Amino acid sequence: MNELPLGFLFGSFASGVKPSGKRDLAIIATESTAAMAGVYTQNVVCATSIDWNRAITPSKDFRGIVVNSGNANACTGQQGKVDNETMAGDVAELFGAQAEQFGVLSTGVIGVPLPMEKVRSGISLAFDGIGDQMQDFQNAALAITTTDKSSKIVVDQIEIEGQQIRIAAMAKGAGMIGPNMATMLAIVCTDAMIDASTIQAKLQCVANESFNSISVEGHTSTNDALMLISSQKLKPISSEIGVASFWQKLTSVCVELAKQVPADGEGATHLIQIDVDGAASKEDAERIARTVASSNLVKTAVTGADPNWGRIVSAAGYSGRQIDLKHTTLKLNGHTVFENGEPIAFSEAIVSDSMRSNFETMIHLKVGVGPGAAVHWTSDLTVDYVRFNSEYTT
Amino acid sequence: MNELPLGFLFGSFASGVKPSGKRDLAIIATESTAAMAGVYTQNVVCATSIDWNRAITPSKDFRGIVVNSGNANACTGQQGKVDNETMAGDVAELFGAQAEQFGVLSTGVIGVPLPMEKVRSGISLAFDGIGDQMQDFQNAALAITTTDKSSKIVVDQIEIEGQQIRIAAMAKGAGMIGPNMATMLAIVCTDAMIDASTIQAKLQCVANESFNSISVEGHTSTNDALMLISSQKLKPISSEIGVASFWQKLTSVCVELAKQVPADGEGATHLIQIDVDGAASKEDAERIARTVASSNLVKTAVTGADPNWGRIVSAAGYSGRQIDLKHTTLKLNGHTVFENGEPIAFSEAIVSDSMRSNFETMIHLKVGVGPGAAVHWTSDLTVDYVRFNSEYTT
Repeated sequence: MNELPLGFLFGSFASGVKPSGKRDLAIIATESTAAMAGVYTQNVVCATSIDWNRAITPSKDFRGIVVNSGNANACTGQQGKVDNETMAGDVAELFGAQAEQFGVLSTGVIGVPLPMEKVRSGISLAFDGIGDQMQDFQNAALAITTTDKSSKIVVDQIEIEGQQIRIAAMAKGAGMIGPNMATMLAIVCTDAMIDASTIQAKLQCVANESFNSISVEGHTSTNDALMLISSQKLKPISSEIGVASFWQKLTSVCVELAKQVPADGEGATHLIQIDVDGAASKEDAERIARTVASSNLVKTAVTGADPNWGRIVSAAGYSGRQIDLKHTTLKLNGHTVFENGEPIAFSEAIVSDSMRSNFETMIHLKVGVGPGAAVHWTSDLTVDYVRFNSEYTT
Repeated sequence: MNELPLGFLFGSFASGVKPSGKRDLAIIATESTAAMAGVYTQNVVCATSIDWNRAITPSKDFRGIVVNSGNANACTGQQGKVDNETMAGDVAELFGAQAEQFGVLSTGVIGVPLPMEKVRSGISLAFDGIGDQMQDFQNAALAITTTDKSSKIVVDQIEIEGQQIRIAAMAKGAGMIGPNMATMLAIVCTDAMIDASTIQAKLQCVANESFNSISVEGHTSTNDALMLISSQKLKPISSEIGVASFWQKLTSVCVELAKQVPADGEGATHLIQIDVDGAASKEDAERIARTVASSNLVKTAVTGADPNWGRIVSAAGYSGRQIDLKHTTLKLNGHTVFENGEPIAFSEAIVSDSMRSNFETMIHLKVGVGPGAAVHWTSDLTVDYVRFNSEYTT
């Protein structure tokens, strides 16, 4: 089994914010000052914790993140701001550090004041149980989840220039997942020697390839955050190829982690991968893929294992980006169903069986305009998604 | 009861294209040459009928429209184009007119060739039964429907300068309803004396206030069309105020008709009206309203009569348009739940009861930036919508 990166500590506790009584408070800390950068929600209605994190990002003397789940502390006005500062202050005091050395992440219901007595006691007790073992990491990953069916983690490593560089990443998210960062929290820890400004420069690209290429229902949350922490325990990578290898590995870890989100989408019975190529630009390809991913008619067709390709082609058509219908071709799970603007005779039974028996549905759309390509992952839309989101306040 | 406009004929028939055996072929014709203008789907993947109609719009010597339901004749390649021309040619021959004097509208499944034998015989038999009575109009309105629970009609009149001007309008649509014209067909007939270029100039404004302000799931169809036909049986309206009154009445007829679409949205249990004001511009207000309307989380909250206002405020936040959270206020069915950026104590039971007991849910959002205002109507999202669209190919 892969090991955790050096220099990290993980604590968690069930503070009672979640009615279920499950773990809802996590601390991800470093033994000494670390480098951190972050990418945050593009929703202009954002949680107070996001404002706080933006102000301290990037950081050269970072010490960690405190996360509470079950309450997003968003749209909570002035009191929310005070509560957020208290969280950062409390955890910093325990580590003998400054509040500004700690990030804060909150996820859960919007518009309800944080129950601060529970949260403050939870921070203190999570600190008491802090450790550097895999079980500590796994418990912390569980503590950041809300409607997720399970925790989402990737632990990987790569040898570069004789050093084992380790990456341990956790994420949460199953609903309110839109393209510009989702109600999605992701924390990526590494012991590679990288500085804060390098992370900040690279992280947006990593996010675009991974967490910005997923959706559940396309609702961009108020609390999305991806934070990367380097404990800088190792020696710097000296070669250009070594640096490239590191970022490639880190991106693949993030893609693997990101795909776990729509795979665990609320009520989801399929993960849908949408590959678009032949668009005028990469950005056009992304927009076309997102438009297809956001169509409830496409999602429900996949739910029903229905090779209803007209819904896919017509969604591409209203993306607002250029497509050349006469050179548009669509494959469903590898079967060509529409080619150069003409419907193709195919066995509906075979394609439908393939959609029914595979958890992943592969949509491959060529739009015949240029070299732009992109991939997007989303969930299907099921009766259970609707039940879940209409019957419970989340 | 209001009467039909002068100079129109309506025919319909069950040609057998619909497996249900219901009426699926309609002819809306004028006794003599008429003025016509149209507004069509903005989807770049559009049905061959839309290309045909665009080429003949606006028209000064229009004679009518042939509509088939059950098959959209979209994404059907070269054969689809030939079939469309055959439909126009057949109906024109029966009236002793040219093909270019007839519009064609198709709605139904995408990507399946039209069963032309049925369609051609249907056109001939619909012509045989043509008439100018209310029952003929109602039967034609039924024949253009697909997944609609019932036909959608508005018949109204207004006295201007001593003349009774009559308007009779029909529409269809319950799914694949997006903002830039929906899988929505609407045909508006009037006997007012207006010429084709005037209609064409005004119709986009009418569409923006009505059919472009509705959605079910936001999927813009390949076949959307709004066509207005003036039989020109009356004398011209001479006064400016008379002309304004006419267009005001016509717009209100279209709004009334348009609202019937999301009210009959597939599986819908609520019609949701979203009023946005205080945006930087009318266009910003429209975008914000559409973004809220497109959120599955907002829709499912309404389904569950859950006053989950955080989902509404956060959807406004990711619309990409300016909002000032500190001056943002939200009312649900008249109850203030969020005011100037702060949550407001309110009785969840009272608001929830009001949402449960009213078919219409009223969302009123002020965003505190400028004078821009807009209204949008949409459906909620229910288990039945998902069942319907995942279990059947539509």
